[in-house]
Amino acid sequence: MTIEVFERLLNEKQFKAIKSIFDTMNPVDTALLLPEFEDKQMLMLFRLIPKENASMVFSYMEPEQQQVLVEAFTDSELKLIMDDMFIDDTVDVIEEMPANVVERMLRVAGDKRTAINTILNYPEDSAGSIMTLEYISLHPAMTIGDALKKIKSRGEYSETVNVCYVIEKHKLLGTITAMDLLTCDDDELLSDVMEENPITVKTLSDQEEVAQMFNKYDMVSIPVLDNENCMVGIVTFDDAMDVIQEETEEDFQKMAAIAPNTDTPYLKISTWELWKGRIPWLLLLMLSATFTGIIISSFEDALSKLVVLTAFIPMLMGTGGNSGSQASVTVIRGLSLGEVDVKDIFKVMWKEFRVSILCGVSLAIACFVKIIVIDGLLLKTPGVSTNVALVVALTLCLTVICAKFIGCVLPIIAKRLKLDPAVMASPFITTVVDGVSLIVYFGIAKAILPELM
Amino acid sequence: MTIEVFERLLNEKQFKAIKSIFDTMNPVDTALLLPEFEDKQMLMLFRLIPKENASMVFSYMEPEQQQVLVEAFTDSELKLIMDDMFIDDTVDVIEEMPANVVERMLRVAGDKRTAINTILNYPEDSAGSIMTLEYISLHPAMTIGDALKKIKSRGEYSETVNVCYVIEKHKLLGTITAMDLLTCDDDELLSDVMEENPITVKTLSDQEEVAQMFNKYDMVSIPVLDNENCMVGIVTFDDAMDVIQEETEEDFQKMAAIAPNTDTPYLKISTWELWKGRIPWLLLLMLSATFTGIIISSFEDALSKLVVLTAFIPMLMGTGGNSGSQASVTVIRGLSLGEVDVKDIFKVMWKEFRVSILCGVSLAIACFVKIIVIDGLLLKTPGVSTNVALVVALTLCLTVICAKFIGCVLPIIAKRLKLDPAVMASPFITTVVDGVSLIVYFGIAKAILPELM
Repeated sequence: MTIEVFERLLNEKQFKAIKSIFDTMNPVDTALLLPEFEDKQMLMLFRLIPKENASMVFSYMEPEQQQVLVEAFTDSELKLIMDDMFIDDTVDVIEEMPANVVERMLRVAGDKRTAINTILNYPEDSAGSIMTLEYISLHPAMTIGDALKKIKSRGEYSETVNVCYVIEKHKLLGTITAMDLLTCDDDELLSDVMEENPITVKTLSDQEEVAQMFNKYDMVSIPVLDNENCMVGIVTFDDAMDVIQEETEEDFQKMAAIAPNTDTPYLKISTWELWKGRIPWLLLLMLSATFTGIIISSFEDALSKLVVLTAFIPMLMGTGGNSGSQASVTVIRGLSLGEVDVKDIFKVMWKEFRVSILCGVSLAIACFVKIIVIDGLLLKTPGVSTNVALVVALTLCLTVICAKFIGCVLPIIAKRLKLDPAVMASPFITTVVDGVSLIVYFGIAKAILPELM
Repeated sequence: MTIEVFERLLNEKQFKAIKSIFDTMNPVDTALLLPEFEDKQMLMLFRLIPKENASMVFSYMEPEQQQVLVEAFTDSELKLIMDDMFIDDTVDVIEEMPANVVERMLRVAGDKRTAINTILNYPEDSAGSIMTLEYISLHPAMTIGDALKKIKSRGEYSETVNVCYVIEKHKLLGTITAMDLLTCDDDELLSDVMEENPITVKTLSDQEEVAQMFNKYDMVSIPVLDNENCMVGIVTFDDAMDVIQEETEEDFQKMAAIAPNTDTPYLKISTWELWKGRIPWLLLLMLSATFTGIIISSFEDALSKLVVLTAFIPMLMGTGGNSGSQASVTVIRGLSLGEVDVKDIFKVMWKEFRVSILCGVSLAIACFVKIIVIDGLLLKTPGVSTNVALVVALTLCLTVICAKFIGCVLPIIAKRLKLDPAVMASPFITTVVDGVSLIVYFGIAKAILPELM
């Protein structure tokens, strides 16, 4: 459905038609459509969404629009929406609202208020902060038939029945899937049917770790235990997927030297926000390039005697930077995915050392031939000689080896120091490698080239 | 459990103890543990896994180990494992096996062979190639009670009951969740309860698109329709998550100028494989740096007159490269996530233009002050003057603007030409930006600096 269709139907007051259209639409699509309208129209449209979908649509909208709606809702409208929303989604909304809106939402939350406050009190980025308290809890002495009866009466209060939890005295004993409930005989005991030793997380576990467990174990929900090993809630896979996506985007941004500060889609971020995210690293890296400037200045004599050496600086620094970021990105992702650990540092170094020798030698040979043939014979660049080609090729080989070493070691050291490895990504490593490659370059040049002695 | 414990128990032939330990372990963890042993021990251990978990463990293992096991299995062992495996997992295994093993697996597959062949025939990367045929299909005229009866008798043949499909004459009419089945009254008609207008994909849809729909709509499975809109299978969320992860890692690798060619964990990739993935781009980028070399050589006169200009080349190229990759990574991810579309190219250009003006001007001011204060007054670098600072600052501003322009436009053009936008990432854009910034630099220098006129 296009926006024009809705605008026309709104103007013609064809509310019944709009209702019918909304009835056929997926709540996610409705949530994406509404922000295209002005606040007043959006509110009118929102009130035409079928009741059973309204809270779902609301929870998929962006905080900005949610706030507009909440401020326009009557108390009873707000209560209807909130009653229908899952607690984890409610908390997601509340976390983005200004204080006065939060107050009003908590006031109408009724008996859900305690649960909401419990989750709000867990530290940001913890499993507790993204969990929900709405799950099905069953007793081990129940039969499948008992369980089915309990779910029939209470199921709608749960976010999911795909996995139910068998609990005795607050301790989680096992899990029962919807498949078990639907296929086992009615008189079987839950304690006989349940899957024992379930995978669990703690309320204070890092949310990224929790999200990775969903990926590793292909689960749809994971139980959350407190410090006394009592079950307090579950994290559902939709929240875990959101966490993974956020962390992945953060890694991408950090690797591109952007301060990760927003989950707004690109086209909706303001120019100022983009500038604020990008300028700090650009400034820092620009200032740190002072060092490469100092190195070049200190070899000014050499450069003025043999200007051709300058022509190879961009190639040496570029290849060094690329080699370094190949190693760093590989190691950073390995660390992120849990494939590489701090204790593997020597294994990683040994592997990168061998790869860097292979890369360095093959690049050096290609570079030597290229300088002799293209720069020397074809382009007849003044100053190019076999000696110069040798200096550049040697430097290239050593630069690649250093770059891969720095690229693989810095992220692991960062992780060891409890810093984010992704901060040690390409731009930072490039700056370090630039300095190293210039020192190597001029050092070798002075040792080999008779003109500079 | 540590490897040493298992080795000791194996040597002492305490098979019952091993069985008990495996019984408490999650199949994913067992699958991660087995490859730590030699082939013979691995086979012994595999045979001690409780029957109900064996096929699950098998499907989570790496192809290399799966092949070892399949080749050691008797036909009846292989058949037991394959009977218990879901068809989509079976196809995943078969796709990685050599021809003779595939033949044997298809031979023992029995009545699943036709289904396996159907999926194998869909093009790689299509929804059809990752779907499973094992889902619960219900008729709209059934009551909830009828449905429960049908599931009780056939449920175990389905990969999931979390969502069941209401189908009439091969056409998908709606979906029923396990929640509906467990909470609705037995005499309600499925056609009254079912969710109509389900989200679907086509057999030939790109698997990446399919995976993004899971993220967008928070689904646990998605129905797959053929060209006649008949339902043929479902894709489950675990396969979708694998696709997302693979594509994300490929994006990371491409952005770091690594040829994406493997989903092996870093520590298990051979040195040669790593070299093969990294050397092509390094070679290409090294050769393309010939152009920056040519540009520098052609300004040799200017450089020999005023060597200090060389000192700022690394800073200018570095900042240009970083600015460009900030823009390109942002746009590439926007394209990957579907937040940015080819038709948004002018919106993106206008946004990046404004950001680049802000970034360019603030960097230029900082750079001007830095050169005057640090390089001039503090370090007393010979040749530094207000004029030189002006040239560098102006170049920096223009470079940043060009870099952001190139960085945001190239990925969109690549997408328009049906190429992968990620190939236009940092290393490629840096090379283009390097050339542009040098031309701007020397152009401005010749125009402003009296020494060079």
